[in-house]
Order: sequence, then structure tokens, then C-alpha cells
Amino acid sequence: MKLSNSYSAFQEDIEEIENYFDRLWPLLRSITGEGVRKTHDILSEIIPLERMEIPSGTCVLDWEVPKEWVVRDAYILTPDGEKILDVWENNLQLVNYSTPFKGTMSKSELENHLYSIPELPDAIPYVTSYYKPRWGFCLPDYMRKSMKEGSYDICIDTEFIQGSMTLSEAVLKGESEREVFLSTYTCHPSMANNELSGPLALAFLYKRLAALPNRRLTYRFVFLPETIGSIAYLAYNGEHLIKTMDAGFTVTCVGLDAPFTLKKSRQGNSVVDRTAEYILQYDNTFPYKILEFFPSGSDERQYCSPGYNLPVASLIRGLYAEFPEYHTSLDNKDLISFEALSQSIEIYYKICLALEKNVIYRNVIARGEPFLAKRNLLLGTGAQRKVENEMILLQWLLNFSDGKHDLISIANRSGQDFWLLDEIAQRCLEADLIEIVHG
Amino acid sequence: MKLSNSYSAFQEDIEEIENYFDRLWPLLRSITGEGVRKTHDILSEIIPLERMEIPSGTCVLDWEVPKEWVVRDAYILTPDGEKILDVWENNLQLVNYSTPFKGTMSKSELENHLYSIPELPDAIPYVTSYYKPRWGFCLPDYMRKSMKEGSYDICIDTEFIQGSMTLSEAVLKGESEREVFLSTYTCHPSMANNELSGPLALAFLYKRLAALPNRRLTYRFVFLPETIGSIAYLAYNGEHLIKTMDAGFTVTCVGLDAPFTLKKSRQGNSVVDRTAEYILQYDNTFPYKILEFFPSGSDERQYCSPGYNLPVASLIRGLYAEFPEYHTSLDNKDLISFEALSQSIEIYYKICLALEKNVIYRNVIARGEPFLAKRNLLLGTGAQRKVENEMILLQWLLNFSDGKHDLISIANRSGQDFWLLDEIAQRCLEADLIEIVHG
Amino acid sequence: MKLSNSYSAFQEDIEEIENYFDRLWPLLRSITGEGVRKTHDILSEIIPLERMEIPSGTCVLDWEVPKEWVVRDAYILTPDGEKILDVWENNLQLVNYSTPFKGTMSKSELENHLYSIPELPDAIPYVTSYYKPRWGFCLPDYMRKSMKEGSYDICIDTEFIQGSMTLSEAVLKGESEREVFLSTYTCHPSMANNELSGPLALAFLYKRLAALPNRRLTYRFVFLPETIGSIAYLAYNGEHLIKTMDAGFTVTCVGLDAPFTLKKSRQGNSVVDRTAEYILQYDNTFPYKILEFFPSGSDERQYCSPGYNLPVASLIRGLYAEFPEYHTSLDNKDLISFEALSQSIEIYYKICLALEKNVIYRNVIARGEPFLAKRNLLLGTGAQRKVENEMILLQWLLNFSDGKHDLISIANRSGQDFWLLDEIAQRCLEADLIEIVHG
Repeated sequence: MKLSNSYSAFQEDIEEIENYFDRLWPLLRSITGEGVRKTHDILSEIIPLERMEIPSGTCVLDWEVPKEWVVRDAYILTPDGEKILDVWENNLQLVNYSTPFKGTMSKSELENHLYSIPELPDAIPYVTSYYKPRWGFCLPDYMRKSMKEGSYDICIDTEFIQGSMTLSEAVLKGESEREVFLSTYTCHPSMANNELSGPLALAFLYKRLAALPNRRLTYRFVFLPETIGSIAYLAYNGEHLIKTMDAGFTVTCVGLDAPFTLKKSRQGNSVVDRTAEYILQYDNTFPYKILEFFPSGSDERQYCSPGYNLPVASLIRGLYAEFPEYHTSLDNKDLISFEALSQSIEIYYKICLALEKNVIYRNVIARGEPFLAKRNLLLGTGAQRKVENEMILLQWLLNFSDGKHDLISIANRSGQDFWLLDEIAQRCLEADLIEIVHG
Repeated sequence: MKLSNSYSAFQEDIEEIENYFDRLWPLLRSITGEGVRKTHDILSEIIPLERMEIPSGTCVLDWEVPKEWVVRDAYILTPDGEKILDVWENNLQLVNYSTPFKGTMSKSELENHLYSIPELPDAIPYVTSYYKPRWGFCLPDYMRKSMKEGSYDICIDTEFIQGSMTLSEAVLKGESEREVFLSTYTCHPSMANNELSGPLALAFLYKRLAALPNRRLTYRFVFLPETIGSIAYLAYNGEHLIKTMDAGFTVTCVGLDAPFTLKKSRQGNSVVDRTAEYILQYDNTFPYKILEFFPSGSDERQYCSPGYNLPVASLIRGLYAEFPEYHTSLDNKDLISFEALSQSIEIYYKICLALEKNVIYRNVIARGEPFLAKRNLLLGTGAQRKVENEMILLQWLLNFSDGKHDLISIANRSGQDFWLLDEIAQRCLEADLIEIVHG
Repeated sequence: MKLSNSYSAFQEDIEEIENYFDRLWPLLRSITGEGVRKTHDILSEIIPLERMEIPSGTCVLDWEVPKEWVVRDAYILTPDGEKILDVWENNLQLVNYSTPFKGTMSKSELENHLYSIPELPDAIPYVTSYYKPRWGFCLPDYMRKSMKEGSYDICIDTEFIQGSMTLSEAVLKGESEREVFLSTYTCHPSMANNELSGPLALAFLYKRLAALPNRRLTYRFVFLPETIGSIAYLAYNGEHLIKTMDAGFTVTCVGLDAPFTLKKSRQGNSVVDRTAEYILQYDNTFPYKILEFFPSGSDERQYCSPGYNLPVASLIRGLYAEFPEYHTSLDNKDLISFEALSQSIEIYYKICLALEKNVIYRNVIARGEPFLAKRNLLLGTGAQRKVENEMILLQWLLNFSDGKHDLISIANRSGQDFWLLDEIAQRCLEADLIEIVHG
């Protein structure tokens, strides 16, 4: 029986995920502000997050933490006096980080502040302007086309205050100080695959890993605004990550019922790359593809910048910008599937289990084979015309446990099942035939 | 003319091999005992073996040399008083290393001590029990099924004595102390491909190599019981092998008229791997396949254990367990072909010849090409519209004799014939254009 | 706009090339002598050559500079008194480096001194005898067959004098002392692809590179007799080349309207190999093939001899001996195309431009991405649903400018256009985001 299967008995309640989704959906998130704090508050019901508030203006690496954005109201009154584009009706309707504005303008003046997508006439686009002060509204193109001439009253009651940027993390201790680093972002407003699927997957992955009777590795879960958040996190904790990280992932876009895409780390052949590839290939029934690292994408851009070059990969369903609903109001609850989200949690979980077991051993009796009979380790039934599979596993393990090959590389080289190799390794450890060199 | 061909004029007398086969066939071999000694006595007529007796109980690496097994008689009397399963009629009929037993039992009690193969109803299986004390008989399944109810008299007159385990070796000195190591086992009773083909090939390969007018390399031929024998050999001579071995083979299963399988050494790209691959690919008309090292198999398991990791490969015809007659009475004289055995000797011989010539040279005039005209080395007829092949060989040799590439790697990179490259190298050596760096 | 295209506006006048071709054609070139000097005189009108005369008898590496060959006259009078095989009518008709001879002989005696090609009955072969004293005449096979019996008067008025061997070079200085080395030979008499195409291409490439407003690299152009010339050049300048050469080419056989063949340097993956491969693959519309280094060929045999192992490749149209007219009177003006020659100059020029820009950069802000907004480097239009291509180029450049990857390797890894990557690099240099590590 595969250990991975035994643990997999544990399964999230899909309804529970959906409930959290519904509560998180309406919050007006951005890279700073109350919407983020409320999001982290709700997630804290699932995972014990510790919060870190970084004051506006703090220098982090090459960047500066921006002012905190406060939104009190935002809407437009049409020439007929109708209230449209109310931020509280759909928070995508206000350009994120809009400057305050109050005034009246003609339709043609207003046009410079409107954003829509002619190819997707029903979609409200998601637009931000973090580092260039401007204001604007987003709306479906069909609606924009129906706006008539006349005078529009604009109200954007926003403010930039000397506040702070919110990051949260939880650490699940293991026997070793070697860490698995899991990062997701919480800065997008009401979107589903490219926002809530990531934090929800990470929070529920915590529950699974916390339920393990014991853990070799330490797991670090971080929730932060994209880009500026990971920059800030690295400014404070980059040295720690360099020293302790065995494997890492940015977890985002995992809610689509689409093939898995493994985007490898910049290192390309690190433990995280080889382990994720093994699980996708041998312990997964879903279609997948594997991409070499590329420097666009999400927060792995920061973790894999050349000065860090951390082993951070990403496992994605619906690569950013590959699904047409990306960064629009169409990336909503209808688009994603909670079953798909649960599968994604399962695959991430399996990878973590494999990382748990992916140790480098050294065969203590490296000269010749050990005399197994005196250790009750003559595996198999003892029929003599065929070496039994257990014996073959044992031979692979002993021959390649030379202090250089980790268990995943032995599985890959031998074509043998990783979980079975681990079972044999446990028996050899008990029999003092092998010892842990690195793990 | 290829040197390999010139030497190949020498050819064993197939009848002579067959005569030795017939004399060795009936001996009751095991990992210890008189059968082994008689086998080595007969082989000594072909190859001057020096014997090494290791006392029972001697510690060798993680193992201990077992007691010596003495067989005086073994048979069963049926309820009708018929004598069956007489060890002297066919020595596979007694489980190898059976404990002594004398007594009477019913057919159903006896069943626990009988071994047969339902899928091969005519075959007597080969069963051993070296490290778990038990006794038993092996028989064709059809015969087992015909045994009737009643009382059977069992006689197993065996004994375990404080004796010794027998290993033998012969060393054929060359100019250099660098060694080619050739190992075969002599512990299986009456079987043909998976026993006698190995020792016979090795003994007759000795004759060929001894007939060479001179040898660069030293050749070490060892005959020993599988597993415990190579373990013991390594315990005494492992350090010597580490220091001196250029290339090695375990020679076994070479009598079938089947494709050649090269099982590479654990190192994978050592001289032995590259040389054997070259010969199979370019100097061989028989089908072949090449496998990366795997840690099950024969004594290469010990030689390639991670603490030694010696460059020991194997060239096999009928991989263990790939021919259905493996480890049964069907692996007999009818199964093998003495022509095939002779071909195997030829291929091993060619590999040895290539190893003889596989030297790393250094071009003495490494800056620019040497001025060949003053050395009478302008090879070819001097026609000018086409560089002659001899000149091309010379250019490859001189350009890549940089102290790093051995001759096999130059042959592989250039696609030029290895034996012709060697001829050119000999002329360059005489002209002091190149010198030997390692060989 | 691609930089390569902008520079390419410059184009040689094909008629000008043809005029030089016509003037160089009739000269009787050899490895020494007045024909070579006159050739270099004419080429000096295009490229400012500095001449180096190495006295006969000078030891150069393993070789010795031969005596200078002086030809005053050479012809045969037939039994009918007709003058044939006059060297001044076609200089291929005299075996190059023929010893002097005056005398009368029968047709059958003369036969030992005649060279023709039965398979190419119209062709005069090109035959030399630099290091074995002999004399001879070359003629079309059809003409040889028509010679009648009788007495022939032979006149070869040649002399070997204590003169010198002529080499010339021009150096085009750049900001850096790192050099691009370009070598061609001027020792073949009246042949077109395998003689004049090389020197003409190199001389006109000089004009293009000299017209560049500035150059990072220094360019060294050398014109010398094949083999003995490059040997001599290395004897005097080999250490300098080892210290300064970034990339090199032997330029020869570039006048045929045939596919390009890149023959890589012995190093195989040096800057010159990767750059030429990039240009052929991505910035070239002509067919091409790529060959690994082989040690026959032209002067790269010397530059790539193991004691130098310089990064010298060759880009050829009509590999030596691959076109049937090779080394005969059929390799003439009709065979080549001046348009093809101009294309070859263009490709060599593009490779030089790429070498100019192929720098290793280091991202100064290696930890995390730089904050681009404050540097006005947020490239692209800022539309948010798709990362703009300029931004992607910037991300590739910054992520892989780690002090190890040169720009060509970033182009190859990313699949992005090299010239656009360079444009981005220039903007980043100005913004102090990257610095030059090696270039």
C-alpha cells in the first residue's frame, strides 16, 4: 500500500471551502488596506496566521512600501442621475489605487478614465495603478457603448494614508529546520482562479500537513501582496530562506478544471523540480505539462531573482493569461471548480509527502552487499527463479545510497516506485543498514 | 588489415571445449566442497589456476564463510520400494546445501520438501538453501503429480564440516601493472549456460591472451562461488583491485545463440563501457543491446557496490532469468551452442585487444601540426584533390591526442576505425610525434 | 528596428569587387614570391595591410620557412615545334614549386611529369610540390590524350632563392583589447572560390567594420599562405592570440551560391560557435548546416591544434573538396557569384555585430526585481492583461544577467531576439541597472 494513499484518506470538505470562498469574495483587496486585513482575518480561522504590518515608506530592497489606500466610496451619476459603477456593487469597477476625484465632466472627457475590453464585451477588466497616480473606472464594453452624451458626476472618495502593508505567515514546525516554503498572494479583489484559489489551497494544505502525526520538514506558509509583498518578505527574511529552504512553491491559479502546469524553478534540477516532476509523472492521473523557468509570472520572479535563486517552482492550473477570463470579472465562481481546487491541494500535499521522505541515505556497509540473512532482511518469498520485487527495491536502495543520490533520484533512475523505496528505506534504517546523510 | 582480424586467426577447437564441458557437467558443485575443487582441477588443464582455500567461519566483509557441505548420498524410496530422486543420477534433484535427514513420511508430509515448476512440467528446478537450514528434493512437476499416496523413505546423508571455500585465480602478466579483471563463478551444479559457459569461456580466453606475443596489460582471471566468493575475494584483494583495475567483466551466461547484452558498469562511462560498446557497434556482426547498470545480477553487484564502484561490466547472451530454462534442468547441453560460446570468447578477446591498444597519448608537437615531410609521415599517395584516409586518421590522432582523450574516444568522436587509428599511433610513437600519457 | 538591419544599409559595390577580382586573377601566387606580394599590394588599396617578410630558413614552430620560388618561364615545345603549357597563359599549367629543368624527352618519359584528371577531362588540376623537389605540368586530360609520340623540349626556368615569405595584416582598433581574429590565405594561383573569394571577402569586411561609428572589439585581419603561413604567424603571435582572442574565423571558399556550412571551433561551444549559430538560425534567410570541428581543412587546423585550441571557426559555402571543381581550372569566375560573395560578407558582418554586442552583464539589483517605475523603465504601454514584449525582454535580461550568461545565451535560452535584448540592455546600462562584467 502506498503511503501517499493512506494519508490521502484525509480530504477537505468541499462545502467548507466554498463557504470560505463566499465570505472572501466581496472584500475589496489591494496591495494594502482593510480588505487585506479582513481577508487574513477570515483565513486565520483555517490556519493560525501571524501578522506583520510594514509601515508605509519603509525601504525594502530596491522598493518602498506605498501609502495605504483607503476607499470610502466611488461611483458615477449619469446625466439621468442614475448611479453606476458603484465600487460596493462590484469592486473591479474602480481602478485599484485610484486617486480621489470629485467633479463633473462630459462623456468625452470621461472616456480617458474608462477601461473596457472590446473583445470581451461582457467583462469588467481588472486594472491597477499602484505607482502612477491616476483614477478610473472599469466596465463592460457593451455598457460603455450605451453611455450617452451629457454631463457625468464623478465621485471617488479615496485617500492615501501613512498606514502599513499587511503580510501574514504560519510556520508548521518539523523535526528538521529545513523548510518547505509556500507563498500565495492576497491583493486581487473579487476574482476566483487568479486570487482566491491560491490562499484557499494554501490554508487547506496547512490543515492536511498539520494533521500528519509527525513531520520531518518545517513548512512556512506566507500570504502577501504580489510583487511588493514578496520583495518586502525577502528584505526581512531572505537570508533565512537562503539558509533553510529545501523546496518552495508560489501557489496561485489552482482552481480551474485544466491540466497542471509545472513551472520549474530557475535552478531547474533542484529537489522541488525533481520531486514535483516525479509526482506528476508517476503518482497523478491528471494531464500535465512541464515548463522550464521563465522570468515573467508571479512571486517566483522575486524568489528566483539571480541574487536569491531559490528553489521555488509553481504548479498551476490555467497559466496566468492563458485562460481568456484572466484579470476580468469573468474569473468568478462559475469559472472554477471546487473539486479541481481540491485535486490541486491533493497534488501539492503529495509533493510535500514526497519531500518528507526524500532523504539522502548512506549505505553503512558500502563494500559488498550486506549479509541480509542475519538481519532478517531477505525480502520476498524466497522463490529462486526470479528475484522478488522487494529484493530489487532493496538492491537499488543499497547500491545507490552512496551519500549522493536522494530517494527521488533513485526512484527516477530505477523506475521503481518512490513510496515503496521509502518503505524499504525505513526497514533498512531500523536494521542500521543505512543512515541519513542529508534530510 | 585490422589487427583484431590478424590475431583472430587463433581459434579454439570447438571439440576440445565440448570435451571439457562433458567432463565438468556431472560434478556436484556448490559454494563449497569437493565438486568445486574437482571443477577447478579440470579447468587447471587449460589455465594455470592458483588455489586459495578460505576456512569456514572466516569473516569476509559483512559475511562469514559457511561450513563446507559434504554429500555422501541422497535419494527417496517410494511406497513400491523404487529409488527415485537419486542425487548421483541428476544432482539438481537435491536442494543444494540440504541438511541431513533420514526418516519415513507420508506423501503429504513429504510435499513440504518438494520443489517443481507447474509452468515447466518437464523441468527439475535448481533450488539452494545456503543460509536457512532445510532439506528438500527437486523434480519435474509431471513426476510429482504421479506420486501416489503411501509411505516414503528419505535418505539425505549430508554433513556440514569445518572445511573451507575454494577460489582460484590465474594472473597473466603484462608490461603494465594496470589490470583487466575477469571473474566467473563455479558454484552451480549441472547447468550449461548459467554455469559451464562462463568458466569455459574464461579458461579458453586465457589461452588466446597467453598466445599473444606481448601484452601491455595484466589479466587477472578468477573462479569463485557467486556472491560469497566475490565478497571473500574483495575482502582479501579489494584494495588491490581499486588500485590497479582498468576494466573488468563478470563472465557468465555466454553459451546461448542469442543477442549480446552489454550490462554497463555502475560508472557507466568508464573505459570498459566505452570499449565494449565500440566493439559491439563497429567490430561485431551479431545483434546486441546495451543496458545501463542495475544492481541485481551476478557478482558485479559486489564489484560495483558503492564502496568499490569498480569498472566491472558484463557481456551476456541470455540475460539471467530472460531465458525460460534459467535455473532448471532444461539449461543443458541441448540448449547451448559451442559455436555461440566460441563467438562469445571472440568478442571478449576483441575487447581485450582494444583495451590493450586503448592508450591516452599526448601529441609532443602540440602547437601547430608537425612538419610531416621531414619525418616521412606524409601519409597517402600524395594525390592532391582529396585528403587520403590515412592522413585524416593522422590528423584526428594528432589533434585529439591532448592527454585527455583515449584512443577509443577519438575513434568514437571521429567515426574512424579504432584499429587503423592504432596503426597510425604506432607509427607516430616510432617517429616520436606522440608519447603515452596513460596506458 | 533591428540594429543589424540599420547597419546593413552599407553594402559593397559588386562591380568594385569584380574589378579587384579581375586584377588579382592572373597573378602567379604560391606560398612565397612576387605573385603574393603583388596580390597584397592590390588588396592594400582596400585594407591598410602591414607586411611581414620572414626570411627563408627561419624556424617557425616545428617547421622551416622554405626558399622563395622564382618563375621566369615554363613551357613545352611539341615535336611540331608548337609551344604548349605556357605558365603565363595559365599558371595552373606548371606544378607549383617545380624545380628548374631544361631538356628533351620522349612522350613516354614526359608522361611521368604530367598531371590530368580522367574524370574531368576539360580541367587542369592544381598540383603543388612544396616539400618534395620535382617538376611537372598540369593539363586537361583530353589534351594529354591527343599528344603524339615524338620528342618534346621542356623549359622550366625557375629558381629557389634565399628570399622570404610574405604575410600581411591589418588591425582595426576597438575600445577593448579583446580581439576578433580573421584569417585568409593568398597562396593559390588562378582559382576563384578556393582562393580569391576569401581575401576579397576579408578586405571588404574590413571596409564595413571600419565604417562603424565605434567598435567595442579589436579586429585583426591576416593574409598569409596556407599552413606554413599560419604556422609562422602562430610562432610570432600565438601568445598574443591566446591572451586576446574572443572569436576567430578562417575565411575561405565563400563565393559559391551554395548553402552555408558552419564548421565549429574545436572548443565547440565557444562564443564564436554560439554566435555564428544564432545568426545562421535566427537572422539569416539562406540554408545552412552546422558541423562539429574536424581536424582536416584549412588554417583552423593550426589555430585549433591542441596546444593552442583557439576559438576559431569557419563559415564556408562549398566545403573544400565538396564541389567537383575544387583544385582545378574549373574553379573560375564562371563558377562563383559576386552576389553570393556579398551575402557571405553580410553574414560575417552580422556575426561581428553580434559579437560587438555579446557582453556578459551583471544585474546590479540582483535581489528581487528593481523598482522600474522610479527609473522610467516600465516598458510597454501599461495595458494590464498581457505583459508586453518589451517587459518580457527586460525580465529575461535582468534575471539572467548574473555574471555568467552572455547575451547570446540569454537570446538562445529565452527564444527572444538578440538585437532587441541588446536594445533593452543599452537602456538598462544607462539606468545603471546592469554593469558589464566581461566584454
